[in-house]
Amino acid sequence: MIILGIDPGTATTGYGVIRQDAPGKLVAVDYGAILTFPDASVPDRLQQIYEAVNLLIDKYSPDYVATERLFFSKNETTALSVGRAIGVILLSISQHKLPWTEYTPMQVKEAVTGTGSADKRQIQWMVTRLLALQSIPKPDDAADALAIAICHAHSVKLATLGVRNR
Amino acid sequence: MIILGIDPGTATTGYGVIRQDAPGKLVAVDYGAILTFPDASVPDRLQQIYEAVNLLIDKYSPDYVATERLFFSKNETTALSVGRAIGVILLSISQHKLPWTEYTPMQVKEAVTGTGSADKRQIQWMVTRLLALQSIPKPDDAADALAIAICHAHSVKLATLGVRNR
Repeated sequence: MIILGIDPGTATTGYGVIRQDAPGKLVAVDYGAILTFPDASVPDRLQQIYEAVNLLIDKYSPDYVATERLFFSKNETTALSVGRAIGVILLSISQHKLPWTEYTPMQVKEAVTGTGSADKRQIQWMVTRLLALQSIPKPDDAADALAIAICHAHSVKLATLGVRNR
Repeated sequence: MIILGIDPGTATTGYGVIRQDAPGKLVAVDYGAILTFPDASVPDRLQQIYEAVNLLIDKYSPDYVATERLFFSKNETTALSVGRAIGVILLSISQHKLPWTEYTPMQVKEAVTGTGSADKRQIQWMVTRLLALQSIPKPDDAADALAIAICHAHSVKLATLGVRNR
């Protein structure tokens, strides 16, 4: 099972690809950030994000894509700007007919650290540990995207257990 | 000169195509609304909007595309939702290498009615009059999109005059 986690933004969109080889065993396949040119027009930056997500999906053929739901204490300008980036990401997901799930920052924190009150450093530490990485993934957006992918892996596992328990 | 005006939204995206035959003479070429299925997933609704905008651009080959900038008294959930729709519209614009301009509702009102305090009915009446239509364009989103296109026509005219005056 391969999961692509995405942390959307117009300037920086983090991505993290993980693979689950055996139950509970997660491996980082790739991670990084799509950086758009600050001088480019908004449409061109969105096209850059769209094409980069297409490339990632074509390269890794994920079974699932998970994104982070916008955190609502941010303002409307941010919501609009992040919304535009999410729009082209979801378009790519739809065109590839992939299942998509959205998680709140709280859900991601809980899944990765066991508590919704964890700070950025705790999350990064747990991501590093859960994926048995040598060092904390950089940039921060990539670590966030890996955390989102891990969150989805946990969610799929819980759903499977739920079905078995019936 | 052909202008495509778009009033973006996830459920309903209004569009209006106008042509300027002679200076000040505007003609409505087409208008209507892209309605997405309420039961469809967000990615699929965005794909529907994206494909419809592609079709409009391919059919009418506009020289300019203008959209309405989100009105900021709306809440963050609306901003996110409208933002996603704008995202896929801008992607289509970028892929067709078309110039894009964004106008605030205030700018559109001023351009069409001469006052920023005009209400919806006044705008619709002026759109009908300026384009010499038999009746008020329906739905409202289509009338809004035509108003956005008219606003851009005025803006282009003013820019041209500005260049001449130098």
